Amino acid sequence: MKRSGRPRVVVLAGGVGAARLLRGMTNLVPGERLTVVVNTGDDDVFHGLHVSPDIDTILYTLSGLADTRRGCGLLNDSFAALAMLGRYGRETWFQLGDRDLGTHLFRSERLRARDTLSAVTDAQRRALGVGARVLPMSDDPVRTIVETQTGRRSFQEYLVRDRARESVRAIRYSGARAARPAEGLIAAIEQASLAVIAPSNPFVSIGPILAVPGIRQALRRADAPVIAVSPLIGGRTVKGPADRMMRALGHRPRPPGLARIYGDFLDGMVIDNADQAYAARLRDDGLEVAVLDTLMSSPVRSTAVARAVLELGSASSRQSLLAS
Amino acid sequence: MKRSGRPRVVVLAGGVGAARLLRGMTNLVPGERLTVVVNTGDDDVFHGLHVSPDIDTILYTLSGLADTRRGCGLLNDSFAALAMLGRYGRETWFQLGDRDLGTHLFRSERLRARDTLSAVTDAQRRALGVGARVLPMSDDPVRTIVETQTGRRSFQEYLVRDRARESVRAIRYSGARAARPAEGLIAAIEQASLAVIAPSNPFVSIGPILAVPGIRQALRRADAPVIAVSPLIGGRTVKGPADRMMRALGHRPRPPGLARIYGDFLDGMVIDNADQAYAARLRDDGLEVAVLDTLMSSPVRSTAVARAVLELGSASSRQSLLAS
Repeated sequence: MKRSGRPRVVVLAGGVGAARLLRGMTNLVPGERLTVVVNTGDDDVFHGLHVSPDIDTILYTLSGLADTRRGCGLLNDSFAALAMLGRYGRETWFQLGDRDLGTHLFRSERLRARDTLSAVTDAQRRALGVGARVLPMSDDPVRTIVETQTGRRSFQEYLVRDRARESVRAIRYSGARAARPAEGLIAAIEQASLAVIAPSNPFVSIGPILAVPGIRQALRRADAPVIAVSPLIGGRTVKGPADRMMRALGHRPRPPGLARIYGDFLDGMVIDNADQAYAARLRDDGLEVAVLDTLMSSPVRSTAVARAVLELGSASSRQSLLAS
Repeated sequence: MKRSGRPRVVVLAGGVGAARLLRGMTNLVPGERLTVVVNTGDDDVFHGLHVSPDIDTILYTLSGLADTRRGCGLLNDSFAALAMLGRYGRETWFQLGDRDLGTHLFRSERLRARDTLSAVTDAQRRALGVGARVLPMSDDPVRTIVETQTGRRSFQEYLVRDRARESVRAIRYSGARAARPAEGLIAAIEQASLAVIAPSNPFVSIGPILAVPGIRQALRRADAPVIAVSPLIGGRTVKGPADRMMRALGHRPRPPGLARIYGDFLDGMVIDNADQAYAARLRDDGLEVAVLDTLMSSPVRSTAVARAVLELGSASSRQSLLAS
């Protein structure tokens, strides 16, 4: 499909790293031209409520409500309901704040009333005043399963309950084969002037999105350049177990390792100054590369990284993606 | 069935008034000899959660966690989740506190897993350290419907949302005909040395319990005396719309009016000093009567009223119901 009109950007997103990039991206791309496709592989049910950690991290961040220090949940939240659940002998390792529960109650009630996750997410987005379109990767359930030496567990069990202590043998996306991309998702990729892979875990954040039939294929055949922001800084990730996971699954946690994972659709990569040494090799492999400080420790740094992504995309597509 | 062994007491209970009587009763009757049968006619679903206001008022009161000033909910509760639900455009007239939500989440999850309300209530009772047995009147759904000139509404809509402003034409107990008493409830009445009707609204608190087939009949044929504590003080109730409701439904809000409602099974009544003038008439009608200050404004007053109930019951049954 031919792109036309004003440039549109689509971003494949996990949690915190993606949210920080998007915090900058929304300063540069008007909401109506930005579509965020969010991982739902680590959605889970706690106390009967449907929790979508990545959707919430992104919407809370873009609405300025996120607890950026904790990295998830809402600012100034309290944990009174959870303490009471503990009194009833329920497991409380997944920290659900009281304000946060309002979101999960809203979502769960509407899902039980047969609304789609897309529709609920859109209502949530509007209520929180977020301008960008936010799509779950699918309205069908896909669950990321982590296999370690001692067995299989849900992603939240692995990450939060067990604190990602065990080495990972394999990652599976249960339900992915039967899942359909959310409505409008494939069209958003087809109509995009730029597709961005956020600096998120390639296996448990971006991997589930790519496992939904049709999405990876759409990126491959897209007219738009596909630019990844590396979540790695000198062989380590800022947050989360992506570096160890890459190693455990046979990938070197360096930009070329990441490029190999996304190789079939990737056109460019934004990497950190610490990984400058890999730029030439990535370019040799045909990728456009931008090198800068990628640590998005402030809104200003988020905007700088987002700008680098858009500039790299502009170079690739020979079309200015930056609003004047 | 013949009573044997140590005296047992069963109390039919609504919300706040009942909880205050029970707060005193538990000082005089050991938990293992006290069964509380609780109204579930005003149970309702809010934000997808099953809320049992009377069960919670009683368990929170008996565990010392109740917000006695508000009259419902938990002490020092916050309302962060509700504020968030309001942000999503949900109705927030039913004040659900954050700690309170822990209870509703616990209950709702277990009910969805096909546990009975009796089983969940017993787990809740144990978690909160309440010694008395607490039974919902039924594990089957019974809903109190209030009919006014402008239509029908649930009890919570009538009381909380619409603030009991409209005059009541009729009260119906939807689902009552098909409901079965909770397991052990009829046996508890049969084995009781004393049955007590708490000072609760006769139409919307005690009425739903009596509407469950078998319960009223069990009270009628019980060996044990049945003693009601009048919720009226000089023609008014301490809390709630029972006085106006009695008038609207053709009953004088005075002890004889109450005696008429419970007439087929009643053996005695505890009335307030303000209603002293009615004592003789009640006695003429064959009832045992005790007259005292029934306003349970403190734990000490609760115990005094409970003691009067047990003494009246002892007189009726010629058996001491008070632990030495």
